[in-house]
Amino acid sequence: MEKIKIDLGARSYDILVGSDLLSQDKIFSGHIAGRNVVIVTNSTVGPLYLNKLRCSLKLAKSIITVTLDDGEQFKTQASLDLIYKSLLENKFGRDSILIALGGGVVGDIAGYAAATYMRGIDFIQVPTTLLAQVDSSVGGKTGINHPHGKNMIGAFYQPRGVIIDISCLNTLPNNELSAGLAEVIKYGLINDFDFFLWLEKEMDNLVAKEPRSLIKAIIRSCQNKAKVVAEDELETEKGIRATLNLGHTFGHAIETAVGYGNWLHGEAVAAGMVMAAHMSLKQDWLTDDDFQRIKKLISRARLPVNPPDLSVDVYMDLMTKDKKNKDGEINLVLLKKLGQAFLTKDYAKNVLDATLRTKSF
Amino acid sequence: MEKIKIDLGARSYDILVGSDLLSQDKIFSGHIAGRNVVIVTNSTVGPLYLNKLRCSLKLAKSIITVTLDDGEQFKTQASLDLIYKSLLENKFGRDSILIALGGGVVGDIAGYAAATYMRGIDFIQVPTTLLAQVDSSVGGKTGINHPHGKNMIGAFYQPRGVIIDISCLNTLPNNELSAGLAEVIKYGLINDFDFFLWLEKEMDNLVAKEPRSLIKAIIRSCQNKAKVVAEDELETEKGIRATLNLGHTFGHAIETAVGYGNWLHGEAVAAGMVMAAHMSLKQDWLTDDDFQRIKKLISRARLPVNPPDLSVDVYMDLMTKDKKNKDGEINLVLLKKLGQAFLTKDYAKNVLDATLRTKSF
Repeated sequence: MEKIKIDLGARSYDILVGSDLLSQDKIFSGHIAGRNVVIVTNSTVGPLYLNKLRCSLKLAKSIITVTLDDGEQFKTQASLDLIYKSLLENKFGRDSILIALGGGVVGDIAGYAAATYMRGIDFIQVPTTLLAQVDSSVGGKTGINHPHGKNMIGAFYQPRGVIIDISCLNTLPNNELSAGLAEVIKYGLINDFDFFLWLEKEMDNLVAKEPRSLIKAIIRSCQNKAKVVAEDELETEKGIRATLNLGHTFGHAIETAVGYGNWLHGEAVAAGMVMAAHMSLKQDWLTDDDFQRIKKLISRARLPVNPPDLSVDVYMDLMTKDKKNKDGEINLVLLKKLGQAFLTKDYAKNVLDATLRTKSF
Repeated sequence: MEKIKIDLGARSYDILVGSDLLSQDKIFSGHIAGRNVVIVTNSTVGPLYLNKLRCSLKLAKSIITVTLDDGEQFKTQASLDLIYKSLLENKFGRDSILIALGGGVVGDIAGYAAATYMRGIDFIQVPTTLLAQVDSSVGGKTGINHPHGKNMIGAFYQPRGVIIDISCLNTLPNNELSAGLAEVIKYGLINDFDFFLWLEKEMDNLVAKEPRSLIKAIIRSCQNKAKVVAEDELETEKGIRATLNLGHTFGHAIETAVGYGNWLHGEAVAAGMVMAAHMSLKQDWLTDDDFQRIKKLISRARLPVNPPDLSVDVYMDLMTKDKKNKDGEINLVLLKKLGQAFLTKDYAKNVLDATLRTKSF
């Protein structure tokens, strides 16, 4: 088992990464002994892992479970209300603790419930998808969607601990594993060229779910995200934390245009990263050789390198609406070189146009 | 104009206290220049002060207003949704700023909206009741009620500034002024004997709304609360911040039993403080002379010294349900002496019983 310390002063916490952690009660006992515990999970993950987790919580004073429907479309006030209602009906106090068992949606809703129930109770993240393991473990973002927009309601709120059991990835569908790998590759592209080189060597092992490779990829991703977030915890300074959005402005446009759920978030981000790399190539910041390497690595992760067939108008309309942009200008995260991303609006408009018109990279 | 600095590191802010501050645009301009501003107020305060405030916001980029219905019964998710909806429909971004113009209910809901819209936007408190001025200006508590309980959903979130215009008290009904004075007296009782002595001298001026007396009472109250909160910002350590609840366990029981709105919060707290003082007297912690002084000061503030006619069973049932209590034990804030409160469960049960049975102190 490996440990990463996320250093945030009084709100510091550890991320534990290893195999079969859910079965090890000593990992949980320090958090839950003598306390009221609420587990929030969903209808897919619950049947697979809830019982294993509960067996590791024998020292809890009491345990209740809230099972949400599975899917981004349930990241709503109604799901949040289910959690509040369950906590209140069971008279759970401020000293109770919440465990989020599931992917990013469960983590976001459950974390937000923990942030806001009685002005904040403790919570533990147990992310069960690769995407959640490398993305939601660090950064403290919690929240729900609003009919008017994604992630519009939320809070920055840190967990007391993150427990990443890579054995949970055994039941993860291959396309979701790949979607997680998109974010893993992202860390190599934006900030860590050595990690990119390592990924070129290890990609086949990662796709094959080789435990030691997965553990290393997860740790390095979390460390990279922690480094970026430490410089800009509340996303106040322009540009630093924004580099984590490489490929995401294009990706969000793709997700919205094709309808959420038709492309996985990670798939859309993968195509979006190729688009960002293509613009960087056309700006002469990236060599063609580097561009091909990026494409190849993404492809080996079984991710799409080409976006769906959308018009330039559709892209432009959706990208100008992105909450990070104002006054009609589109800020994009591009690559200054392989392993170094930056936020900019200083790019040639015809380069953006050319990339949006390209159907096959 | 007087200024109190609330020192919370990166989240520090100033409380400004004075007459006719709403009309002084330079007080607001640093916060609002070039920004999208949303003012949240209610149907009572809005007609009185909204226009004056708007005239001091000429440098804002745009201004929208959300007017909530007036009353604790509207401190709900539905009111919160009105604010979210207005922000989203007007495409207000993370760099917008919210101004809460009203009493404690407006401040709590609006502060919580600011805490959770896009994971947190700036906000300014402009409290217009004495209670909100001396209570909500410090401490960062925001939130809404849930059908299952008061203040069950919320967050700790600090404003960027608090602007206390005592001219707003000119339109405050007398019983609400008195309700605010209950909390003012509380600070003298729990932590500040000198302030208690000053209040004995100044009470008639306070009831007559004499500006210089009000300003001093507000400043001293905010300073006292800041001192207590600084020792225990997130209410994690037992007992320190809890002293701010002197009279509140009895008070909440009274409010619930008679139905919210029939007794003002401050009126119930006033009677509750007399009950706490009476228990302290019977424990021999307080002299009879001190007990009489407390009763007299509360009475001079035109506040009730006797609770409504409730049975011991009703009190006991409601007080054991209080969210601060667990395992059936009732923690109470009592007086070790005049000017020093502490949280305890070490009191004689027959003393509690005797106090609950007393109809006239």
